[in-house]
Amino acid sequence: MGTVVALAGQVGGAKLADGLYRLRGKDLVVVVNTGDDYEHLGLAFSPDVDTMLYTLAGIAAPAAGWEPEGESRVVHAMVKKLGGPDQPALGDRSLAAPLLRSQGMADGRRPTEITLDFCRHLGIAARVLPMSDDPVRTNVITTKGVVTFNEFFNQLNCEPTVHGFQYAGAEDARISDEVLAALHAPDLEAIVLCPANPYHAIQPILAVGGLYDLIRKCRAPVIAVSPIVGGKALKGSAGKIMRDLGREPSARAAAAEYLRLIDGFVIDTEDAQFVDGVRAMDLEVLSTSTVMRTVEDRINLASRVLDFATAIRAKQALELEQAP
Amino acid sequence: MGTVVALAGQVGGAKLADGLYRLRGKDLVVVVNTGDDYEHLGLAFSPDVDTMLYTLAGIAAPAAGWEPEGESRVVHAMVKKLGGPDQPALGDRSLAAPLLRSQGMADGRRPTEITLDFCRHLGIAARVLPMSDDPVRTNVITTKGVVTFNEFFNQLNCEPTVHGFQYAGAEDARISDEVLAALHAPDLEAIVLCPANPYHAIQPILAVGGLYDLIRKCRAPVIAVSPIVGGKALKGSAGKIMRDLGREPSARAAAAEYLRLIDGFVIDTEDAQFVDGVRAMDLEVLSTSTVMRTVEDRINLASRVLDFATAIRAKQALELEQAP
Repeated sequence: MGTVVALAGQVGGAKLADGLYRLRGKDLVVVVNTGDDYEHLGLAFSPDVDTMLYTLAGIAAPAAGWEPEGESRVVHAMVKKLGGPDQPALGDRSLAAPLLRSQGMADGRRPTEITLDFCRHLGIAARVLPMSDDPVRTNVITTKGVVTFNEFFNQLNCEPTVHGFQYAGAEDARISDEVLAALHAPDLEAIVLCPANPYHAIQPILAVGGLYDLIRKCRAPVIAVSPIVGGKALKGSAGKIMRDLGREPSARAAAAEYLRLIDGFVIDTEDAQFVDGVRAMDLEVLSTSTVMRTVEDRINLASRVLDFATAIRAKQALELEQAP
Repeated sequence: MGTVVALAGQVGGAKLADGLYRLRGKDLVVVVNTGDDYEHLGLAFSPDVDTMLYTLAGIAAPAAGWEPEGESRVVHAMVKKLGGPDQPALGDRSLAAPLLRSQGMADGRRPTEITLDFCRHLGIAARVLPMSDDPVRTNVITTKGVVTFNEFFNQLNCEPTVHGFQYAGAEDARISDEVLAALHAPDLEAIVLCPANPYHAIQPILAVGGLYDLIRKCRAPVIAVSPIVGGKALKGSAGKIMRDLGREPSARAAAAEYLRLIDGFVIDTEDAQFVDGVRAMDLEVLSTSTVMRTVEDRINLASRVLDFATAIRAKQALELEQAP
């Protein structure tokens, strides 16, 4: 068993990463989207990174996985009382990581080092890595103008029609040594694109200068898990955005987002009608239950994804042997 | 009835200021010590200012007046879980003001403006003013070296023997326009030095460049209320520090700290034996109950202090008339 690298963002991504973590422990590296990072009250919020930390540490709220369980909002109430901003409604426990991150960054430490410190203190054996130590900001091009993802999501409620996305700073963002080392691990077994919005969770990672090509050139199979089940995103805005972009909100269209990068695509059994269509894109397809309601669901899906990768690897080795 | 200016720090100072506020409302200006300010987790903590705000807003905890009532510490628990510092034990609600203050200052706003904004939002009609917008840091010269007041108080538990104090930055700190306007108010009725540690609550204010002379030259009577009752500070370290400095920890010695600045000194009835000694320093003396256990105690003491100022003013006017 070798190293598994997962690319992830959002709660769905964290759930599959948690399944992989429960199977692979320290041999998992999770590269997390930071395109949604924002500054509020002078603090560096990194929602996808923190969601991942809470999930892998087993302290995420069951119903609201982006924050620690038992979250309260008394700081926020006091901030409002003192005339501070109404939105976003800060959680108390959710303030701790941004506080320490901001201070660490002010002291010249890299987000990656700070995140790995959090992992150590939370007892997370896996390596959770921000996609880059350089800032990248996902902007949404809408009928109401270009807005940050944060504005689009929190203030505009995902309502304006989306024409496209920009990943500001991505081209110049450097791949960290830690991400580089993970992708160059001699025992790299699979790269998993976790189920999350392609446009503002996975693509920002792939947009980091050179990362897309690096992943494409990896010998390990690259597997993506569909964020679309039964024609809609389980949570979040992927389906709506796909329609805005003139794409069919389907598992097949989601697969097309990763074309030329991935070797295999995992779709839900509910979407079995798309198996042939995805296969026609020259992709291996696994149809399995992808809905993760329980921890067992996470582990089962992770296990099937890793088996799928093993099967693809075996097939690729055979094809290589049989090549003229 | 005119403007009353109170100089204050700590919980005791806030209590008398609250009594004055309940009598005078918008005609009270409180100039608050900022020598104890410190930075923690990148945030600008101003403990004496925030204590004053919570007290005047009526939201201070009854038993721990330096923080809002019902305080919790879940952010702190999460900070520790993530590997952050153990001390000080941050209160959740107590984080709100430092968060907004830090952000305001990063945006180029003056601490005075930020504090006045807090007053407005908390419904405080009085003006609470930091002693200066420039940073002043109270350092304690001890047998263990020179330490910040914060280290002395929180980490060293006031234990090392004290040889003296430094108010770093005070000489160059400018008096704000707001403090200047209050001291130049044509209707200025009294300046009250609230009962608080002379060395690290009141002297830092007086050390702000030019402020001591400005107060001395004011025509309004300057009254100090003894922080020492029955040979010891009611709360805090004033008694211990006076002994360290080779001074008798008495109301008389406390009066001596403000000699040449004040016109009148208020001592507790328990310290009646010092009345003659204080009078011998050419000071007017009022002996009354100075222990403030209830809100009524605060109002009663404030009322007596203001009456005392009126009596002194009348006496001075008479002396002026009778002067050759």
